[in-house]
Amino acid sequence: MTNTTSKDQLNSELLHRLQRLENHQNIQAVVTDYLIAVDDLNDVEAVLDCFTEDAVFDMSGINYPTLTGKPALRDFFSNVFDSMTHHAHYATNFKLDSVTDNTAKCRTHVIGMGKTKQGEDVLFYLQYHLDMQYEDGRWRMSRFKGMALMPLEG
Amino acid sequence: MTNTTSKDQLNSELLHRLQRLENHQNIQAVVTDYLIAVDDLNDVEAVLDCFTEDAVFDMSGINYPTLTGKPALRDFFSNVFDSMTHHAHYATNFKLDSVTDNTAKCRTHVIGMGKTKQGEDVLFYLQYHLDMQYEDGRWRMSRFKGMALMPLEG
Amino acid sequence: MTNTTSKDQLNSELLHRLQRLENHQNIQAVVTDYLIAVDDLNDVEAVLDCFTEDAVFDMSGINYPTLTGKPALRDFFSNVFDSMTHHAHYATNFKLDSVTDNTAKCRTHVIGMGKTKQGEDVLFYLQYHLDMQYEDGRWRMSRFKGMALMPLEG
Repeated sequence: MTNTTSKDQLNSELLHRLQRLENHQNIQAVVTDYLIAVDDLNDVEAVLDCFTEDAVFDMSGINYPTLTGKPALRDFFSNVFDSMTHHAHYATNFKLDSVTDNTAKCRTHVIGMGKTKQGEDVLFYLQYHLDMQYEDGRWRMSRFKGMALMPLEG
Repeated sequence: MTNTTSKDQLNSELLHRLQRLENHQNIQAVVTDYLIAVDDLNDVEAVLDCFTEDAVFDMSGINYPTLTGKPALRDFFSNVFDSMTHHAHYATNFKLDSVTDNTAKCRTHVIGMGKTKQGEDVLFYLQYHLDMQYEDGRWRMSRFKGMALMPLEG
Repeated sequence: MTNTTSKDQLNSELLHRLQRLENHQNIQAVVTDYLIAVDDLNDVEAVLDCFTEDAVFDMSGINYPTLTGKPALRDFFSNVFDSMTHHAHYATNFKLDSVTDNTAKCRTHVIGMGKTKQGEDVLFYLQYHLDMQYEDGRWRMSRFKGMALMPLEG
């Protein structure tokens, strides 16, 4: 009996530790999927699929508007995709600050750059502060806040 | 019996989930090992050890040649190492797109820069698309395709 | 009996593989925590908490002093935090070179930049070589060596 109990405890501990590793990987994967889609510049729905329906997208830290909800995000990213010829975003320093069964908070540094159809270069050194939600079997961003780490140019 | 069966199922599930995490880490490690060796600029064989014998190295996306097989790669990297005084490559946004027992596909963003012996600076904003193969107990790149995310300079 | 033994072996193998994944994640997290604190520029103790009491901080590779021990590090980072208005450090290519129960060696590429109160920009392309120590339930840096991957400017 004691042996059975200890086996169960071990399995429970193993599952808990596995879950912790998976949470880290799966939540970071949302950031990766988002930036790959943003840089591919050809599938707005792939970008939107990284957000919850009521997501708040707050880029006020770099003088962009704050948007709420997928329709507003769809308009925004459609315009962005129409106006840019190139995008390249590099995310590092991913930190999972907290996690529950269906919510999480995390941060990541991002170098973001691009070229507009007018030939202008844009370049940002950012940190994203993200709230995540688990729904329908995957994590999505419910709140996205971009903050500038370096002074904005121009 | 039911209990034994469920224990076996649990162990099988644990192993599967562990394997998924290990695949991600071990396959990403090939990219890391490759870039560390490329930036160390002192051991061509350490670079080549990240590729399969028949690897295809396709950098046509940045106007480099496409090479096939280790001898061609050895010549190429020997010339690169002879011509550069500095290298710095930064990989982010690693995504494991698919994996089987002995093959995998993945992507990663890379910022690549360097300085030639003539004092010229090179700078690339890339995404690598990689095919991986598992052989002799480790993963190696069997196909390497570099694509430019930003316009090439000069 | 055979069955029990094989179950124990399986559990022991699972734990070993889990530990390997956790070591990678937990040791990389020290680098992440360090850089987040360095870039936040508001909590020197959060930076120092990433180092052991007797840590050696060797930035001679970029013409900074080599410091030993937390008091010297506290002075150094207090001065840095006083002199900078912005910091942005991006770590990639993390590699865990070796690990024991309470020590580890690892490397990571870093792009480091900042702006001084005098308005000067600083920019470094580095690789950190780190010795880690496990104590009081977490990993800390006991030796930090920064090496330049690209020529230093200015």
